[in-house]
Amino acid sequence: MNALIDILRARLGSGGMLTDPTDTEPYCSDWRGLYHGRTPAVLRPADTEAVAACVRACAEAGAGIVPMGGNTSMVGGAAVSENGHELVLSLSRMNRIRAIDPVDMTMTVEAGVTLKAAQDAAREAGCLLPLSISSEGSAQIGGVLATNAGGNNTVRYGNARELVLGLEAVMPDGTVFEGLRRLRKDNTGYALRQLLVGSEGTLGIITAAVLQLSPRPRQVEVALCAVASPEAALALFTAFRSADPSAIQAFEYMSGTGMGLVNRLIPDAALPLAEPAPHYVLVELASARDDDSLRTLLESVLGEALEEGRVLDAVVAESETQRLAIWKLREEHAEAQKRAGGNVKNDVSVPVSRVPELIARATEACERLIPGIRVAPFGHLGDGNIHFNLVQPDGADRVAFLARDHEIMDTVAAIVRDLDGSFSAEHGVGKLKPYMMPSWRGGAELETMRRIKHALDPKGIMNPGKVLPEASPPT
Amino acid sequence: MNALIDILRARLGSGGMLTDPTDTEPYCSDWRGLYHGRTPAVLRPADTEAVAACVRACAEAGAGIVPMGGNTSMVGGAAVSENGHELVLSLSRMNRIRAIDPVDMTMTVEAGVTLKAAQDAAREAGCLLPLSISSEGSAQIGGVLATNAGGNNTVRYGNARELVLGLEAVMPDGTVFEGLRRLRKDNTGYALRQLLVGSEGTLGIITAAVLQLSPRPRQVEVALCAVASPEAALALFTAFRSADPSAIQAFEYMSGTGMGLVNRLIPDAALPLAEPAPHYVLVELASARDDDSLRTLLESVLGEALEEGRVLDAVVAESETQRLAIWKLREEHAEAQKRAGGNVKNDVSVPVSRVPELIARATEACERLIPGIRVAPFGHLGDGNIHFNLVQPDGADRVAFLARDHEIMDTVAAIVRDLDGSFSAEHGVGKLKPYMMPSWRGGAELETMRRIKHALDPKGIMNPGKVLPEASPPT
Repeated sequence: MNALIDILRARLGSGGMLTDPTDTEPYCSDWRGLYHGRTPAVLRPADTEAVAACVRACAEAGAGIVPMGGNTSMVGGAAVSENGHELVLSLSRMNRIRAIDPVDMTMTVEAGVTLKAAQDAAREAGCLLPLSISSEGSAQIGGVLATNAGGNNTVRYGNARELVLGLEAVMPDGTVFEGLRRLRKDNTGYALRQLLVGSEGTLGIITAAVLQLSPRPRQVEVALCAVASPEAALALFTAFRSADPSAIQAFEYMSGTGMGLVNRLIPDAALPLAEPAPHYVLVELASARDDDSLRTLLESVLGEALEEGRVLDAVVAESETQRLAIWKLREEHAEAQKRAGGNVKNDVSVPVSRVPELIARATEACERLIPGIRVAPFGHLGDGNIHFNLVQPDGADRVAFLARDHEIMDTVAAIVRDLDGSFSAEHGVGKLKPYMMPSWRGGAELETMRRIKHALDPKGIMNPGKVLPEASPPT
Repeated sequence: MNALIDILRARLGSGGMLTDPTDTEPYCSDWRGLYHGRTPAVLRPADTEAVAACVRACAEAGAGIVPMGGNTSMVGGAAVSENGHELVLSLSRMNRIRAIDPVDMTMTVEAGVTLKAAQDAAREAGCLLPLSISSEGSAQIGGVLATNAGGNNTVRYGNARELVLGLEAVMPDGTVFEGLRRLRKDNTGYALRQLLVGSEGTLGIITAAVLQLSPRPRQVEVALCAVASPEAALALFTAFRSADPSAIQAFEYMSGTGMGLVNRLIPDAALPLAEPAPHYVLVELASARDDDSLRTLLESVLGEALEEGRVLDAVVAESETQRLAIWKLREEHAEAQKRAGGNVKNDVSVPVSRVPELIARATEACERLIPGIRVAPFGHLGDGNIHFNLVQPDGADRVAFLARDHEIMDTVAAIVRDLDGSFSAEHGVGKLKPYMMPSWRGGAELETMRRIKHALDPKGIMNPGKVLPEASPPT
């Protein structure tokens, strides 16, 4: 290891490497505090060639590399091993926006640019980078793509994968995949960029990408609706989709329990409706046209739903301030739950049609498991992606509650599985969930993943221990 | 080989296998007539388990398999070798639509369903399968996905890949990848379905898929515009995109030369404009709303472009008959060029902003190469995908012209390459173009593809000779 570090230091210079334990320590805990490791060095290459040189040296020495962006993974995607043998490779110095083309509506960004900085640069060029997640201020493009991030606007624009036209990546042997193309159509061989996106750093290190931008919406309408049931929320979604699918920019579900916590625990969060409801929907419509009849569309669909009793009450934002106030109710859900005590999070998805059944069954099962538990699901109903979160019973012991987290997760997972869903909709697998892969993605699927991993990274140096459970290499 | 055929016959029954040379012969020429091979047997499994059994038996014997759908590849994607050692595996008996869910807006279809039949079934369920290509009457879903088909509506809905939520496939070892999920979000490991889509049958055989449907548009507007230059055509595209990107359903470019051939050689094809122009655009707008101001949008953008001289003349379809008449002018381009003599086709793409430069430079280079050549490009300007087709000089010798096809293709390719484009936008690589892979997709990219191929298909039995050029296996 010392010889390898000498080689890397010679290549990167002293500014390109941290080896003092005090300096490397901040890189060795994950954002959620689930993992604590240690590393002999944090590599900070400033360009693609330096990344490649680091990977070549590590491949030769058989040393593990943990690629790291903003370190905001919810599942320990950039967690460093406790064995002290893995090097951290931070992309944060590769933070240039290489190009923006307003005719092609593309931007070429390096991996270390934060999502927020990329959004801002797109906006300055008159465009929209239509990807938004709560950690966007610190999450970096490399990690955002490596985990195929989702967020509030995927119902309209798709996940991160659907925004990537081109990719540059350093492969596990230290060669550079030069795929920074700006083409909307290109059928020339295997979809390597699609494969690298979502591979969580286990098949290579993304160093730059070409992202597809969109025109900025000129009109946005937001409404908060009180509904009697998840079925009514789903019916409202299909009504909007039937009226105009391309107008829907976000369609978020929130439980009455979750909204109650926000109202009680978050300052300046007030429900703009006459009385609390058992369930809520936040719908955002958008259009690029300034003369569009978006408000008419919104009021027509809501009016019909109110008449038919599917919506109990609704408020439409009349100003930017009101829009933000409504969104705040949604965005503070995680914070309010944190303040209410111990939390167990389940980032799950099911077919959109099955969201009501998921909520009903999982609520009942969790309440049976732990009487008094506060079931507070919320999330992207339009994508079938629900954050099925649970908060400890009021006044219960936090530690005792959290000790049962796997019991709760297994309870929810069994129902998700029965509904043909997924145990990870947008957070990925990371270090937290590889153990779930054999039962959920086993057989030919996991075997194919293993073969690909072994073919591209025979020494297993790229982000060890993530995504795939440990196993002997394929024969 | 005889022993293998006996095993397969025992498994498939006599109705499931063709071995008579007269019966197998129709499977052994590709649609364009570029390749002529022979096969000892055409396997016609009726379900996924039978496909898997065939693949297992072939894998054991090391026999090559050519998966075949409608056999409509433009690049010999299902061409059978002349060596007589490859078995054809036809998916045509797997032609069930397994399910349609109008709430999730998904359909589960088997590989042997024609694209047309799938479109019809979606329509009957009140939905739209938004993928349309000229061979849709015979092209089958398995092949459509294996080649990641494009077509006229990708500017709005994306390529085939973007419509696939789930996939079932038989892997080269005969195991079944059971990935028929209906989830819009699922970050649980590597994107195998994205990898299989576009792999042209070289990594496995797609047996069924879950496709994302859309609501049917309630309003459609079509206009044909005469423009002075490709630059003006591009400016018109950006004007429409700026006005409302989600309204654009197709944006097609046609050259004056190509339109002249259609007018002269196709019965009942008449230009609905006062006089011929050097270049044309067909724009189609669509909306799910029935009260949408789509016509106003169309007329406003066209009006401004006419005033500024970017559009010379335009006609808006006032009826379904007129819409079809305008589309006929676009759709008959290939047939008119065929009737005009020898053709050389180039299915290329460049960044959208570079389409005008592509047309200008490639036109000049081809005219210099062969004086009198008729340069007749057309295609999906909104995607940067131009079919840069060339027709022999009027009265010239067809055979002598076609003898220079590689000279012409190389001339176009050099310019496409200089513009950071692709040598195959939507037709794929097939058997025709693997030789181009090393120079266009070489280095780490091709090496990674080879490693994946070798890892999943170590004996090289899946669709031999397609996509990847021959090489020794990776070390």
